[in-house]
Amino acid sequence: MTSELPGQIRPLERMDDLVALCARRGFIFPSSEIYGGINGFWDYGPLGVELKNNLKAAWWQEVVRERDDVEGIDSSIICHPRTWEASGHVEHFSDPMVDCRACKKRFRADQLADAGPCPSREGTSEHDWTEPRRFNLMLQTRIGASEDAAAVAYLRAETCQPIFNDFRRVREVARQQIPFGIAQIGKAFRNEINPRNFTFRSREFEQAELEFFCRETERDRWFDHWLGERLRFHRELGLGPDHLRTRPHAPEELAHYCKRAMDIEFRFPFGWQEIEGIHDRGDWDLSRHSEFSGKDLGVTDPETKEHYVPVVIETSVGIDRSCLALLCHAYREEALEGGEARTVLRLHPRLAPIKVAVLPLSKKLAEPARRLERELRRRWNAFYDDAGNIGRRYRRQDEVGTPFCVTYDFDSETDGRVTVRERDSMQQERIALDGVAAWLTDRLGPGA
Amino acid sequence: MTSELPGQIRPLERMDDLVALCARRGFIFPSSEIYGGINGFWDYGPLGVELKNNLKAAWWQEVVRERDDVEGIDSSIICHPRTWEASGHVEHFSDPMVDCRACKKRFRADQLADAGPCPSREGTSEHDWTEPRRFNLMLQTRIGASEDAAAVAYLRAETCQPIFNDFRRVREVARQQIPFGIAQIGKAFRNEINPRNFTFRSREFEQAELEFFCRETERDRWFDHWLGERLRFHRELGLGPDHLRTRPHAPEELAHYCKRAMDIEFRFPFGWQEIEGIHDRGDWDLSRHSEFSGKDLGVTDPETKEHYVPVVIETSVGIDRSCLALLCHAYREEALEGGEARTVLRLHPRLAPIKVAVLPLSKKLAEPARRLERELRRRWNAFYDDAGNIGRRYRRQDEVGTPFCVTYDFDSETDGRVTVRERDSMQQERIALDGVAAWLTDRLGPGA
Repeated sequence: MTSELPGQIRPLERMDDLVALCARRGFIFPSSEIYGGINGFWDYGPLGVELKNNLKAAWWQEVVRERDDVEGIDSSIICHPRTWEASGHVEHFSDPMVDCRACKKRFRADQLADAGPCPSREGTSEHDWTEPRRFNLMLQTRIGASEDAAAVAYLRAETCQPIFNDFRRVREVARQQIPFGIAQIGKAFRNEINPRNFTFRSREFEQAELEFFCRETERDRWFDHWLGERLRFHRELGLGPDHLRTRPHAPEELAHYCKRAMDIEFRFPFGWQEIEGIHDRGDWDLSRHSEFSGKDLGVTDPETKEHYVPVVIETSVGIDRSCLALLCHAYREEALEGGEARTVLRLHPRLAPIKVAVLPLSKKLAEPARRLERELRRRWNAFYDDAGNIGRRYRRQDEVGTPFCVTYDFDSETDGRVTVRERDSMQQERIALDGVAAWLTDRLGPGA
Repeated sequence: MTSELPGQIRPLERMDDLVALCARRGFIFPSSEIYGGINGFWDYGPLGVELKNNLKAAWWQEVVRERDDVEGIDSSIICHPRTWEASGHVEHFSDPMVDCRACKKRFRADQLADAGPCPSREGTSEHDWTEPRRFNLMLQTRIGASEDAAAVAYLRAETCQPIFNDFRRVREVARQQIPFGIAQIGKAFRNEINPRNFTFRSREFEQAELEFFCRETERDRWFDHWLGERLRFHRELGLGPDHLRTRPHAPEELAHYCKRAMDIEFRFPFGWQEIEGIHDRGDWDLSRHSEFSGKDLGVTDPETKEHYVPVVIETSVGIDRSCLALLCHAYREEALEGGEARTVLRLHPRLAPIKVAVLPLSKKLAEPARRLERELRRRWNAFYDDAGNIGRRYRRQDEVGTPFCVTYDFDSETDGRVTVRERDSMQQERIALDGVAAWLTDRLGPGA
């Protein structure tokens, strides 16, 4: 970067740069790192958990709390195994796999072109394949004490099926009429053959799903409504129009029960990829769970008394993918004056893990600076740093997306004023020490 | 209750009353209810998820965000299986089980007295037992595609072990020195033989754990500090002194690596039971993970340059148990004047799922009441109800713990004032419509 002109900006081009930053600063790193990691599993560190929690809170606030036609739930990860028979996962949620008879490795039959030469026949790309067999992607376990009666159970492969399980109960307790929705955020698990692209395709991941139940005649209106809402959400949190697009599924791509589907895609360094899907699932799910449970999941129209099974419009966003998109998009390297460079995460202040850093110019000023930090910390995630020169400390905060820094200097002792600095513009302003909380409230909201 | 004197209060005596309320109002109900449920798994409904999220947010705010010596993480549920060898779970985390040769049922050997008569020999309590065998309580799964190389993995049995896995990485990225702590909230799984007492002992549950690393010489001071902090937490959220006690573990109760342990117990209708444990785990965990991973998890004292393995003080609270204690304690039936009765959940306003209900006196006043509700909903979880007489609507809110109701009546149209009612005292006050948000801010904080 040093040879570039001040003001030049370089976006994220190689995922490796982000992966390195995430590990170095504690956003995301491999699970069980000291044991060499475990393929497809990731841990969120001190900054990553705040980013992820802020994203989940924003979704919950907009999709659940601010609406009176959506109810939240939190269902167990393990549910009755009949759930996954009704959903079709036991029968159909599988990839076709082939084994190489020479090297004994297993590959996805539809990705054989990617498999490369067989290690046992190096230099050639020959494989002696077995016939393709289905390999179910659900993670299985067994619960209960008795070995004979021990029940096979599954870790949920998606958070939406328990919503259908709970549809009748939630509708009754919340006294909701059609149209209304049920939403939840939680972990799901898929035994991906080939986890890849950092957290984009992992075996344990978090989803935020809304199932919105409506009349068949209203399905397109609600589909369009939710597509609009979800696009607005991603845009308002900072994903730019040149990095966000919608892609309708072609008829041959649609699951057999799916009437219409739209992906919201983000342009990652590894290409355009889905971060959210909007699906018209018809009455498939409720009908199947009615059939498999023997319970009537239909509803009665309060006016016409007609009994019918509602249609469902689903919005399904991957929390990890969405975090990854936000990190990719926020990342930039900037050439500064004087030949310096900085890496900065231009995260929306609402999502930034640390909202404000308090930086005394000298360790001698630790006491009043600590006092300010403690006051701010009660309301916003605050951070204190007195190690190294002030420029270096600004860089450290830029790199993790902290929108505001407050510098307490020797003049502060006499004039009762501090310097506030904004991350993106790097502009500084001198304001009264006892006005810092109000200044931040204007920019961050009231906090906790 | 009708024969009792006004003002008489009856606390929760039978769990069934609370279980029924939780199902009826959508706090907590069995997972996969339409399939007959699945033993030991529960779903949180629209009100339950808000209560649970509020409790988790309170813990995170106090234990992580308000402190600069605690870092949060969010690790994967499935981690490297060596983790559970190092922790001792693979070898030791098991119950001794015996099978009845007649009925083929399995029982815990240490609870045979509770087993009752064998169904196959009804009327007698005779069993023909097998020898006791160990039954591991961890839930197992397999990950990866190849059947040969498929790795057995475990769903984490506690959230603390991944904290030890991540200790070195977190300390480095957060630039923390001893003493400091790492905390996380998340799901854990145990294949309990006999799930019971509603959500108290279930197979899937949520923990909030803090591992605080300190010098050996400071262990007692930090143990006492954290015990005090955690007791204060439970008290401030409303658990009364007559329902809360501490119980030190006798030497023979302590795990071999545990130097000191204190349970925080709550008096449930089914007896005094642990909701949280404070443990001095010594250097057992870090030493074991050092040994099993081959990675040095020791730290160097910045002044003396001494290299040592820190001692850990753990605080471990069950989120589901804590929710259950809060619900039990909040529940009361009160005899009112005029022979009426009400059930009320006296939940702390910070925990209450709904913060404010807006109730127009008549459906004709729906429009301005809806306007108020929408305004309030942006900041607090608000609820709108115009069905039934006003007394009945107050009862419905009392029963779910809503601290404040706002009634919009015909006078409001002309005098611009509404009636606010406080849940516990049932006292009412007439305040200006445009002052409702400020009145609530004084009592609830600023909200979202």
